[in-house]
Amino acid sequence: MIPWDDTLLERIEPLDAEAMRLAAARQDSLTKPPGSMGRLERVATQVAGIAGHPRPAIGRKAIITVAGDHGVVAEGVSAYPQAVTAQMVHNILSGGAAISVLARHIGARVLVVDAGVAADLPAHPHLLSARVAPGTANIALGPAMTRTQAQAAIMAGVEAVRRERALGLDIVGTGDMGIGNTTPSAAICAALTNVDPAAICGRGAGVDDEGLQRKVGAVRRALAINAPNPQDALGVLAAVGGFEIGAIAGVILGAAVERVPVVVDGFISTAAAMIAVGLAPQCRPYLIAAHRSQETGHRLMLDWLQIEPLLDLDLRLGEGTGAALAISLVEAACKVLDEMATFDQAGVSGRLAP
Amino acid sequence: MIPWDDTLLERIEPLDAEAMRLAAARQDSLTKPPGSMGRLERVATQVAGIAGHPRPAIGRKAIITVAGDHGVVAEGVSAYPQAVTAQMVHNILSGGAAISVLARHIGARVLVVDAGVAADLPAHPHLLSARVAPGTANIALGPAMTRTQAQAAIMAGVEAVRRERALGLDIVGTGDMGIGNTTPSAAICAALTNVDPAAICGRGAGVDDEGLQRKVGAVRRALAINAPNPQDALGVLAAVGGFEIGAIAGVILGAAVERVPVVVDGFISTAAAMIAVGLAPQCRPYLIAAHRSQETGHRLMLDWLQIEPLLDLDLRLGEGTGAALAISLVEAACKVLDEMATFDQAGVSGRLAP
Repeated sequence: MIPWDDTLLERIEPLDAEAMRLAAARQDSLTKPPGSMGRLERVATQVAGIAGHPRPAIGRKAIITVAGDHGVVAEGVSAYPQAVTAQMVHNILSGGAAISVLARHIGARVLVVDAGVAADLPAHPHLLSARVAPGTANIALGPAMTRTQAQAAIMAGVEAVRRERALGLDIVGTGDMGIGNTTPSAAICAALTNVDPAAICGRGAGVDDEGLQRKVGAVRRALAINAPNPQDALGVLAAVGGFEIGAIAGVILGAAVERVPVVVDGFISTAAAMIAVGLAPQCRPYLIAAHRSQETGHRLMLDWLQIEPLLDLDLRLGEGTGAALAISLVEAACKVLDEMATFDQAGVSGRLAP
Repeated sequence: MIPWDDTLLERIEPLDAEAMRLAAARQDSLTKPPGSMGRLERVATQVAGIAGHPRPAIGRKAIITVAGDHGVVAEGVSAYPQAVTAQMVHNILSGGAAISVLARHIGARVLVVDAGVAADLPAHPHLLSARVAPGTANIALGPAMTRTQAQAAIMAGVEAVRRERALGLDIVGTGDMGIGNTTPSAAICAALTNVDPAAICGRGAGVDDEGLQRKVGAVRRALAINAPNPQDALGVLAAVGGFEIGAIAGVILGAAVERVPVVVDGFISTAAAMIAVGLAPQCRPYLIAAHRSQETGHRLMLDWLQIEPLLDLDLRLGEGTGAALAISLVEAACKVLDEMATFDQAGVSGRLAP
């Protein structure tokens, strides 16, 4: 287990206001009506502030997809058997998963992190082995993990970012793989927002009505037995979270430390973002929400984080698939900022006097 | 002027139901919960039906950006001078416009069509000269053009698709450039929906409150003096349209004839789609709506067409910028359909028995 870094959270700095000012000024000099590229202008300006450069380039991209297993599957909360977590890690590494296809489409690397899969995984150049334990304990019966394990999970994500940063990294997307992991994600959301689990739990990979009822019941019992304190984000993660969720929180915190924009995927990644922001509110400006998931509680999570997603495509797969699609939009936004001609350069007339 | 092709509309065939059935069946065999890629699954299945292939490839892409000028600018409806239309054509061809940047980002060609610019444009390999006239007449005073001119404008778009098809074309996006062209687009929408122009007109490239009032007034007078018949789409185009709007309608009809999916950009392109669907309702299944524009009446147009946009990014630029971003999503969707492993191939377990 990777030991906790006491300096991690304090190394997250504010965005570069001067780079953002210069980026916004350049936006208004380009050959388009001011503001007419909408969200693309705003996200490019945000990336300028993150990168500390008024014309940031997004060339080097990575998706970090973290895998973990969950003791709560014993409650019958998932439509698929636990073995699928490890099977899908192989599928991702072999290039056959949705995230494999979409990462190729956008020209991104994929790093898979084993933060806590319940089966042994053979070594692979694109697999980072940082297993905290072979799956969490059943949150319906007690805490998912110890606080030390929660810290180790976070550090696995920090280490993954460090590794990708060494290869060159302009933007990172988060992803998850873990049968049963919408249940702890819903529990985290319920713990931090105090909203009824029935308004948060969705069908995940596709449980039926009875499975959904079992899921709501499992989250209710997890909250009752663990009584997580919403002011203690590490405690919430340890009580009702998951190893991959902790590691994704670590990816977010590590990216903020390294001044790399981090594109947060769907329901599970957004639960992780809630943990990250709970631990270090100063990481929030580094977040870019990829998409609004079809999973029930996702809108509530995004509202709690006060971040607005770029896409709304009824996705509910995870793996980082929404993040990959959104990264391409962020790259496009930064190219518009960098590559467009100004009115002066192009000899285009400005606005008429009113 | 290109003469009307009497066989054009009758050459549009229904989508290939068998290709769509095979595509949908394959979607459910891939290593993801069925339906979990949401809109991406549905659009890939649509493209399968358009292309007549269960695993269509989107490799060869083009944006057709049509330019034209508008006599109605005399009413003070635009924030920019008319000279900008021709200046921006140069900027697009020189690679400095937003559409130039975004087309490079997605690996698409850009063809600019002069359907009716009010200034002479030098020859360029990526410019198709098909000028019907140097700008329309002022629609607030009478018809924009004759019916023969409206047909010629449509044929300019058909010719542009034919030219791109000869170079290889798996998908086409529409785009517009024309100072003042949100005014005729709003007039087309008002004529076809019978909704009050005040609920349709927006600020276009950025007119102030007084300009917006002049715009609403100009559309009201255009409808009053021309009295377009909503059952006669060609008559609506001739009465209150524009040359680039007619040519974009031609791009849509031409793409449908050639079985090429056509990604419809924002407010102006969607007005053109209304004309195209008014002329030939059988072209509707070939449409993919790129995005929801910030321009006021765009939602009404999309509702009238019964098409749902892929993106909602507060864009209001035109040129085909939203279409370019959406084409990348459609390409991603088709790659997911084609390149993902099936459960059998990847050795991934299926759903648990309920």
